Amino acid sequence: MRIARFITGENPQYGILDEDADELVALRGDPIYGDLETTGQRVALDEVRLLSPVIPRSKVVGIGRNYADHAAEMGNEVPDEPLVFLKPNTSVIGPDDPIVLPAFSGEVHHEAELAVVISRLCKFVPAEKASDVIFGYTVANDVTARDVQRTDGQWTRAKGFDTSCPLGPYLALDLDVSDLAVRARVDGELRQDGRTSQLVHKVPELIAYVSSIFTLLPGDVILTGTPAGVGPIDVGQRVEVEVEGIGAFSNPVVRRD
Amino acid sequence: MRIARFITGENPQYGILDEDADELVALRGDPIYGDLETTGQRVALDEVRLLSPVIPRSKVVGIGRNYADHAAEMGNEVPDEPLVFLKPNTSVIGPDDPIVLPAFSGEVHHEAELAVVISRLCKFVPAEKASDVIFGYTVANDVTARDVQRTDGQWTRAKGFDTSCPLGPYLALDLDVSDLAVRARVDGELRQDGRTSQLVHKVPELIAYVSSIFTLLPGDVILTGTPAGVGPIDVGQRVEVEVEGIGAFSNPVVRRD
Repeated sequence: MRIARFITGENPQYGILDEDADELVALRGDPIYGDLETTGQRVALDEVRLLSPVIPRSKVVGIGRNYADHAAEMGNEVPDEPLVFLKPNTSVIGPDDPIVLPAFSGEVHHEAELAVVISRLCKFVPAEKASDVIFGYTVANDVTARDVQRTDGQWTRAKGFDTSCPLGPYLALDLDVSDLAVRARVDGELRQDGRTSQLVHKVPELIAYVSSIFTLLPGDVILTGTPAGVGPIDVGQRVEVEVEGIGAFSNPVVRRD
Repeated sequence: MRIARFITGENPQYGILDEDADELVALRGDPIYGDLETTGQRVALDEVRLLSPVIPRSKVVGIGRNYADHAAEMGNEVPDEPLVFLKPNTSVIGPDDPIVLPAFSGEVHHEAELAVVISRLCKFVPAEKASDVIFGYTVANDVTARDVQRTDGQWTRAKGFDTSCPLGPYLALDLDVSDLAVRARVDGELRQDGRTSQLVHKVPELIAYVSSIFTLLPGDVILTGTPAGVGPIDVGQRVEVEVEGIGAFSNPVVRRD
């Protein structure tokens, strides 16, 4: 089952994707905080604007160097333990929202990633119980200002700026994420093409590690890292990220004067 | 004027401190999101439990190496630009709440700091307009796992773990923060004793810099850095932080088995 957050008029709603009819079956309230109860309303997919499937109330937790081939292309070793960083909820945007290149960077990269959305408050979750705290999965672009990532030391500015965390297009529930394609395209050209089977630290291990540091809240997002093939995006381009079984979405790239 | 967030029964409330009477004059709602409207209720200060004056809906932004004497004691240079990191809202606790030493660290340090609380949604705030977006000031302890700060590279685990951001005891409004004492005591012994006049990057400059990266939301907190004298805290100790004109509060230090 795939769920979208969308808007037709004034208020965001959630809906279950009916793939055969290309329609969304509207849900009452926020399914991350309640049950999946439909309202009876159906909306054609081409009449809605899809939004980020979740705006975390607390945090987006990123994981660095979690594909060996990406660590290698950056000239880095794979760390023994997951390399954890934070993106604030103010960095989250949805499908088709513009990625605004920050004035402080001249080299901004795409990073296609599988993202995990947490279902409930939890701490110290053992890896074998990780599935109990997963609401679903979505697709992320961990947009990174590569030049200031190299020079700042801390990655906060490089990975935390406004619009640096596109999420979408759907939340996929009950998905087997052990071997899914993870792709990025720039203006239609394939740039990243990895598989989640290449993840150094798998999803259950990431949840165990991250929840040993922080209390996780419903709607918190964990980005699982990016495969090889990262590269620059520039004004006027459109960057698409995709995870097999969840979907694909894209964002135009702009710069404010 | 100083404002407390407190609890007597079930629900947290805000109140204005009446220093002469040692009482709190209760406020309607959350003053960060509305006006300062009193309910008429008065509560004796010794009958309430003070809470963290704010739980950010988005982020706590930390600033590293912002006192030259502290940068020197750590063997670091003062950076040209503010060194920015994030602590999640799940790290925030209030006065008297225990600081829980994380199992992954054997060396946790106190860091007394002046903290700025943001009043409204803003981006690209010029330094000369910074006062327009400041709700008030509070006191923070930027608790840091020094050993993993050295080894992790990113400071997320070292500075983001649960209970690593005690805030309190009051929100001080209309305070001149240009030259205030910033102190930490462990079991009553003075360990840090700096002055905000020693800040390398002053509050208006920090707000300008931080708001050039992130949209700031009402209730977001900016920690301004810590003066020299940081050092370890251990189980059974009580650590107090103080900023002149705002107040002091303390937390016991514990470790879970």
